[in-house]
Amino acid sequence: MNPRAVSAVIIGNEVLTAKVTEANGSLLIRRCRERGIELQSVHLVRDEVDDIVEQLAQCRRHTRYVITSGGVGPTHDDVTVRAVALTLQRPVIRLAEMEANIRGYYGDRPVPAEALRMAEAPAGATLIPSEDVRFPVLECDGVFMLPGVPQLFRVHLEVVLRQLPGKPGSMRQLFLNVGESDIAAVLDGVALARPHVALGSYPTWGEGADHRVRITIEHESAVETAETLEALKVALGGAVIVREE
Amino acid sequence: MNPRAVSAVIIGNEVLTAKVTEANGSLLIRRCRERGIELQSVHLVRDEVDDIVEQLAQCRRHTRYVITSGGVGPTHDDVTVRAVALTLQRPVIRLAEMEANIRGYYGDRPVPAEALRMAEAPAGATLIPSEDVRFPVLECDGVFMLPGVPQLFRVHLEVVLRQLPGKPGSMRQLFLNVGESDIAAVLDGVALARPHVALGSYPTWGEGADHRVRITIEHESAVETAETLEALKVALGGAVIVREE
Repeated sequence: MNPRAVSAVIIGNEVLTAKVTEANGSLLIRRCRERGIELQSVHLVRDEVDDIVEQLAQCRRHTRYVITSGGVGPTHDDVTVRAVALTLQRPVIRLAEMEANIRGYYGDRPVPAEALRMAEAPAGATLIPSEDVRFPVLECDGVFMLPGVPQLFRVHLEVVLRQLPGKPGSMRQLFLNVGESDIAAVLDGVALARPHVALGSYPTWGEGADHRVRITIEHESAVETAETLEALKVALGGAVIVREE
Repeated sequence: MNPRAVSAVIIGNEVLTAKVTEANGSLLIRRCRERGIELQSVHLVRDEVDDIVEQLAQCRRHTRYVITSGGVGPTHDDVTVRAVALTLQRPVIRLAEMEANIRGYYGDRPVPAEALRMAEAPAGATLIPSEDVRFPVLECDGVFMLPGVPQLFRVHLEVVLRQLPGKPGSMRQLFLNVGESDIAAVLDGVALARPHVALGSYPTWGEGADHRVRITIEHESAVETAETLEALKVALGGAVIVREE
């Protein structure tokens, strides 16, 4: 289990059936990168308790933190809290602080019983308050339960990211005008010699691209990425290099 | 295991680290919906053999078909074929037909050893030819191994979708001007009375939206969705309905 890494479970039939365009996973991926947070996997699953429990258990075997999106509203298809509680083997309770929040939101109006379902949480859950959000973020044993509505998810996500260990790293890139197969041996050689540096190779077939393959070089240290860039340039020879970044 | 359903495994550190924007999963979701193919889950995982094997095994417990994207090129981070072979407990072999394809592509030029890695496949794999693609689609025991490059993935995906069982269903929608909590009891009642019909409830907080909640009603039969729509309209009362589709 990686004590610094994060995985994500995006919950909702609406996403898998394209009734809404998936936005939360994409945002999460981008924001983790920007904050140097290690994101290990992202899963889109149905609103089924069993599916969510299985996925959460898998994620928790690999990463200390799990962010969920969706399934925390008042309707019949909102089963995330129950699934998290099952996964963590905790009962579902009603959080007094959250109930007070919800009653405050309704003011003098009667509070529907279903609205109070949103005060339910796995026992032992904590609420992370923030000035940016009306309702605090719900967390239990490293699982952060975020709303699926993109406008809310976005704000809650920033609250969560501030809690997670991150370290922005260094990335360099080389753009080449040869096919991937022709440089695979050279790449493999450098990757083998520098196993601590992450090398990526991404061919493009796009019309109008100025290159055929993009090589990415990543490491925490800018010295390591610069040295690897130089090693690659020497190994490749200058003729195939379109540009570097 | 659902004998008609599909799940997807999108392989690649480049996606999880936002070096490329994820496009294949989104396309897959949309195309499955358009063809009435039941997509049960989508997973974004790293280029790690262990991660891919674990995810493939999980997917195969739930769905007859699994579509993978990425990790089938000639470089060190292309490990999908090996992972699929491990999952299916088959050895990796070189497919003569694929090798001939690759040699044909190179013509009179020398073929790098790394290019021939793309002829590797789990033993027993079959190639699905199509006029639309230069290289045939690789399939083994319900696992379709597609390239991650979006321009290629798109074309290969269509070849795969033609092989899968689909049945476009009927969907109706109601747009309401009340909060989700205020209608949750009514929705739950209808969902309970008609468990075979899929009901979805999606609040919006968007500026300028003409509604606060969208209800979706889905079933294979248009008669069922129409009857459920009417039942919901009666139960909700006309005042809260902005429009229907």
